[in-house]
Amino acid sequence: PAGGDSAPGKVQELCIYEINERDRGSPAILKLSQKPVNSLGDLVPFSNKLYTGDLQKRVGITAGICILIQNKPEKKGDRYEAIFSFYFGDYGHIAVQGPYLTYEDTYLAVTGGSGIFEGATGQVKLQQLIFPFKLFYTFYLKGVKDLPAELLGKPVPPNPSVEPSPAARACEPNAAIANFTD
Amino acid sequence: PAGGDSAPGKVQELCIYEINERDRGSPAILKLSQKPVNSLGDLVPFSNKLYTGDLQKRVGITAGICILIQNKPEKKGDRYEAIFSFYFGDYGHIAVQGPYLTYEDTYLAVTGGSGIFEGATGQVKLQQLIFPFKLFYTFYLKGVKDLPAELLGKPVPPNPSVEPSPAARACEPNAAIANFTD
Amino acid sequence: PAGGDSAPGKVQELCIYEINERDRGSPAILKLSQKPVNSLGDLVPFSNKLYTGDLQKRVGITAGICILIQNKPEKKGDRYEAIFSFYFGDYGHIAVQGPYLTYEDTYLAVTGGSGIFEGATGQVKLQQLIFPFKLFYTFYLKGVKDLPAELLGKPVPPNPSVEPSPAARACEPNAAIANFTD
Repeated sequence: PAGGDSAPGKVQELCIYEINERDRGSPAILKLSQKPVNSLGDLVPFSNKLYTGDLQKRVGITAGICILIQNKPEKKGDRYEAIFSFYFGDYGHIAVQGPYLTYEDTYLAVTGGSGIFEGATGQVKLQQLIFPFKLFYTFYLKGVKDLPAELLGKPVPPNPSVEPSPAARACEPNAAIANFTD
Repeated sequence: PAGGDSAPGKVQELCIYEINERDRGSPAILKLSQKPVNSLGDLVPFSNKLYTGDLQKRVGITAGICILIQNKPEKKGDRYEAIFSFYFGDYGHIAVQGPYLTYEDTYLAVTGGSGIFEGATGQVKLQQLIFPFKLFYTFYLKGVKDLPAELLGKPVPPNPSVEPSPAARACEPNAAIANFTD
Repeated sequence: PAGGDSAPGKVQELCIYEINERDRGSPAILKLSQKPVNSLGDLVPFSNKLYTGDLQKRVGITAGICILIQNKPEKKGDRYEAIFSFYFGDYGHIAVQGPYLTYEDTYLAVTGGSGIFEGATGQVKLQQLIFPFKLFYTFYLKGVKDLPAELLGKPVPPNPSVEPSPAARACEPNAAIANFTD
């Protein structure tokens, strides 16, 4: 039943867009390695905006840090270890940790959550659409109750040209979840 | 039975005080943003002392980092992403991740644990009593065995004037858990 | 059955060696405390190589950060809070968080995973063999399917003189797991 515990082991999919609209001072690129090329020692705190997979509602922000692990000249990119959370307003948050490669999709671990995401486990697929400004995530969540319908709208297939609806970008009341995180 | 596995899904509450007694060089405020106002890029490693909710026993320390996400002038405060552990001497530790807002209570995710907290999931409520020196936490833990009685004394209701017992502050043997973390 | 879900609560042991072969620019010691002695504020991003417990196969890397918490002159060492992942090529990764003490063994929390380690919980024992270049880990994993045989070879008992097989060090195809992480 709606609101009840999900069946044990049931996997729920949740799609979400992360978009850097360049209005949050993010990312903060800390070149602590003091080397000209990206190197271990560099740290990148970041916080971007989150929209539902159907791009009709603003839900919140990401918040966390990417730790530069290694520059990969043959891939023209970098490996980071990413540790961050996804914030969903009054619904709570999901914490994740894992690989962020600027040149290919990855899966990160879901390490926990709060609110409706309390006790969450599973993993999340990260797909980069425009480096590093537009990303699409598919969560595969276990251990949580049935997710609310407003988070589960039919996702817009990920591609570099997707944009949130104007109402969602403006955070209009009917285009944002309750107390969306900002 | 005592020491046995708890019933599946059972939630156990655990209250704890975190107090900064200004003798550990904490917090270390790293103004890496190089901006005058608190900004993304600033990092704050920290480690404070932990006491049981009844303030009768020293149990250990916190250890971790707060990542400044955004200054909120309208709230006269800041949003941080906090990633840290609670240490309980021989009992082990609990790892958490989530929001720390200097201006309101939050819930963080329990991401795991060791010792008697091995396999812990759930969330923890953070209440700030005196910024940033005195905090009260209520853990809602799943997946762990029945907690030991010495951690479960009746909590002193949180308020800014609470203090650990003199014996606990002095870490006297009868006022500290076994091999309390320091 | 092989490949099926393990029995609920079943604990699987997984042994792994972490070796710093001094060819990855790791660790990056960031003396952000600006104090002569190791102090809160110092950060240490790192990434080392991983080999199976039998030292016959290269599996991947570690990637993450150690947060210096406190220098312990009486122990001639330091307490760190460690937040990092173990990468296992196509198999996925395991995320962990907890104490790293340079002077004694510790247990860290398993906070999650991806791929075959999706949904992992439990803890991992850290044994230091040569500071800070050679470590031995024993994972006690719950929540994952039966692990593949190539990760479960009989571990070489940990001691400071252990070395990976020459073929594993050279990452020869028969001495590395599929798409080992590098």
